[in-house]
Amino acid sequence: MRRRKRPSSSDVVAGNGLIDRRALLGGGVAMAGAMGTRSVPTAAAAEPLKDDPWSLGPGASVKSYLTPSSFEKNVALTLNNPDGRPFTQNGRTPHHMLNGMITPNGLHFVVSYGGPPDIDPGKHQLLIHGLVRRPLLFTLETLARYPKVSRITFLECGGNSAPLFSPEPIQASVQALHGLTSCAEWTGVKLSTLLDETGIDPTAKWFIAEGADAPHLTRSVPVAKALDDAIIALYQNGERLMPANGYPMRLLLPGYEGNMNVKYLRRIKLVAEPAMSFWETKTYAQLLPDGKAYQFYFFQEVKSFITQPSPGLTLKEPGVYEISGVAYSGTGRIAKVMVSADGGRSWAQAALQEPVLPKAFTRFRMVWRWDGGPATLQSRAWDEAGNSQPTRAEFVAQRGQLKSVPPIVAFPNQHFNAITSWAIDPKGQVSHVYA
Amino acid sequence: MRRRKRPSSSDVVAGNGLIDRRALLGGGVAMAGAMGTRSVPTAAAAEPLKDDPWSLGPGASVKSYLTPSSFEKNVALTLNNPDGRPFTQNGRTPHHMLNGMITPNGLHFVVSYGGPPDIDPGKHQLLIHGLVRRPLLFTLETLARYPKVSRITFLECGGNSAPLFSPEPIQASVQALHGLTSCAEWTGVKLSTLLDETGIDPTAKWFIAEGADAPHLTRSVPVAKALDDAIIALYQNGERLMPANGYPMRLLLPGYEGNMNVKYLRRIKLVAEPAMSFWETKTYAQLLPDGKAYQFYFFQEVKSFITQPSPGLTLKEPGVYEISGVAYSGTGRIAKVMVSADGGRSWAQAALQEPVLPKAFTRFRMVWRWDGGPATLQSRAWDEAGNSQPTRAEFVAQRGQLKSVPPIVAFPNQHFNAITSWAIDPKGQVSHVYA
Repeated sequence: MRRRKRPSSSDVVAGNGLIDRRALLGGGVAMAGAMGTRSVPTAAAAEPLKDDPWSLGPGASVKSYLTPSSFEKNVALTLNNPDGRPFTQNGRTPHHMLNGMITPNGLHFVVSYGGPPDIDPGKHQLLIHGLVRRPLLFTLETLARYPKVSRITFLECGGNSAPLFSPEPIQASVQALHGLTSCAEWTGVKLSTLLDETGIDPTAKWFIAEGADAPHLTRSVPVAKALDDAIIALYQNGERLMPANGYPMRLLLPGYEGNMNVKYLRRIKLVAEPAMSFWETKTYAQLLPDGKAYQFYFFQEVKSFITQPSPGLTLKEPGVYEISGVAYSGTGRIAKVMVSADGGRSWAQAALQEPVLPKAFTRFRMVWRWDGGPATLQSRAWDEAGNSQPTRAEFVAQRGQLKSVPPIVAFPNQHFNAITSWAIDPKGQVSHVYA
Repeated sequence: MRRRKRPSSSDVVAGNGLIDRRALLGGGVAMAGAMGTRSVPTAAAAEPLKDDPWSLGPGASVKSYLTPSSFEKNVALTLNNPDGRPFTQNGRTPHHMLNGMITPNGLHFVVSYGGPPDIDPGKHQLLIHGLVRRPLLFTLETLARYPKVSRITFLECGGNSAPLFSPEPIQASVQALHGLTSCAEWTGVKLSTLLDETGIDPTAKWFIAEGADAPHLTRSVPVAKALDDAIIALYQNGERLMPANGYPMRLLLPGYEGNMNVKYLRRIKLVAEPAMSFWETKTYAQLLPDGKAYQFYFFQEVKSFITQPSPGLTLKEPGVYEISGVAYSGTGRIAKVMVSADGGRSWAQAALQEPVLPKAFTRFRMVWRWDGGPATLQSRAWDEAGNSQPTRAEFVAQRGQLKSVPPIVAFPNQHFNAITSWAIDPKGQVSHVYA
């Protein structure tokens, strides 16, 4: 039987109670009483559990498509427009209620301009045309025959985290602040495989991807991305795409901002110049403080945020807790995540959950002993290309912030990736602060 | 722009049209017309798509929990007992409709003896007692504070594939034959972390895990597994477990047969000897041809099966197709999958989808040019420990087969892992054969 060392003061590796991650990885973090676990008198231990009603009779019938327990009904996307009125519909992922790397299909974030269309997969077609040698039409039936690939990758709306452009920290959950990103296993046909068959005219430098839903969202993408890792995605976590996520097929551009991953993909046109579509010149181009436009930036920058604890979750009492969150980068793998419990004065390296995959969520974990005093939790991520998440001050110096606090639904800014800070008060309440 | 070699006769690496996997991995498999793709006259290519109804008006409202398209209603678990009558309920995963490594939570297989109970997570408790220094009671609230781990791992019922014990091949889908296995990302607390806190008496060699639903399924597990990779699983693909898969917590023993991964886990008792419970002496112990009992075998043996094509899917015309399936081993990583199109006379190595993780589904892919003649498709997997999937003849010699063909629901045998064979007839119909 293995004996493990119990954490001691020598395991504290950064201020305000962060504990050496080796204590976590070795499994030796448990400390008598530190988790709020209830000890049971040995004599009574054999049968201390009463039989609850569910132990005394038959359960339900298994359904042909499983859904969560009714006790989990609050684990849901938050909708800005639940009635589907004619403006953008967002559904935000409840990161504070989730754990792991995969976002389940029921809870993958959504940004929808026209509402999820009800596409008949037997009638939907994908055309590849323009500067190609041989235009081709693909159906789901023909795409099924092509070699496929799977990859676990995140998607993120360029507008995720936009409330953090506010000059004052907005009090909201991690779902409201960072809920427009999710991670899934996507399976489909590489776009390069299809372009092998159409051929590419040497003058083609971009392709325009267009969706089949009524807004016909249109984005220009460099041909180099098509030849790299672009996928015509047909499956999401094993099953066909969710309608709100592009059923029956979407463009998947790993690491590129969400709206470029065109849903309901119906046309790819190879062209010499970008289309300068409405979506890329207005909706997804931002004015920088220097008066220039932030456009065609593509990559989602390296980022992380702590999901547990986070606003809305409460620490009941002093003791040991796991600090956990997600980190990701549109450029590649996460190399390192550092965590602070004292607002950035000292840092300790978090454990990264294997496998650490390129352009995928990486779950990080840190052990923390909360002494009951005030604390400010932060995480900061680095990717394998050497990019690091900026502090808020660094970010604002470059990208600016709003002059006043607008309603949470009305943030025009994009691509916020600076450090997020959660303050813990002596009652164990968590709030959003700038630190 | 990259130019890629098109497959030629030199790319054929095994009999009956198997094509070099490097052609697949390089993306150069596309062959003019070989996929049934429709060429479009260049002059008409710019606008050949008519606007379908879904391109002309608003779509639906985004829901707070996403579900598949109504066009996918047949992508469902098949239920042996949809009314939940008082005998075992099985739900089988539709592997022929899925792709990738992850099984979505809606379609994870289920074997349920008592029906999924409706457990209040605020009242459920886990007791660890018996040969420990300090019996402890854990709630979801306290477990949330412990360091957690995530891992992608398969589960498989010991009775999966039991219809292949029939002396004649039963005509059924891959869902009916092999649908009692699935793969998900599970997140929870390592059992070793909790045992650190209870302490383990040196005389403890086994632990008995017991479920909270009315059948109180009880299994004995070596303590060594608890100290290795056993997890108290709280999350399945990011969200809380599905009720039919053990909500709010289950034991997860990566690589061990399904029923040992006790759902609705409420008690773990450390003991010196196995319990010899009903479930391990009757239900999950089998009589071998030599009269001995096959009991306490734990590991799911290395296995693979082809999901596309498979019975119920039809090849419409001669041409190129992807052969794809899943491989897995309770011992570790998949090292190699070989595919045959001529009933085992010749073999070619399939591409394995990265990441290849221990005790997880590994998706394999092979490119195949069907000439329209008869073919027999097989897959055979090897794991990193050197175990290989047996031929059916080898398996039957060791484990036996039934004397006659019973109804498909009544196979007492367990742990079938031999090669599965699909025959293709000249009409492109797929059937189950022994080859």
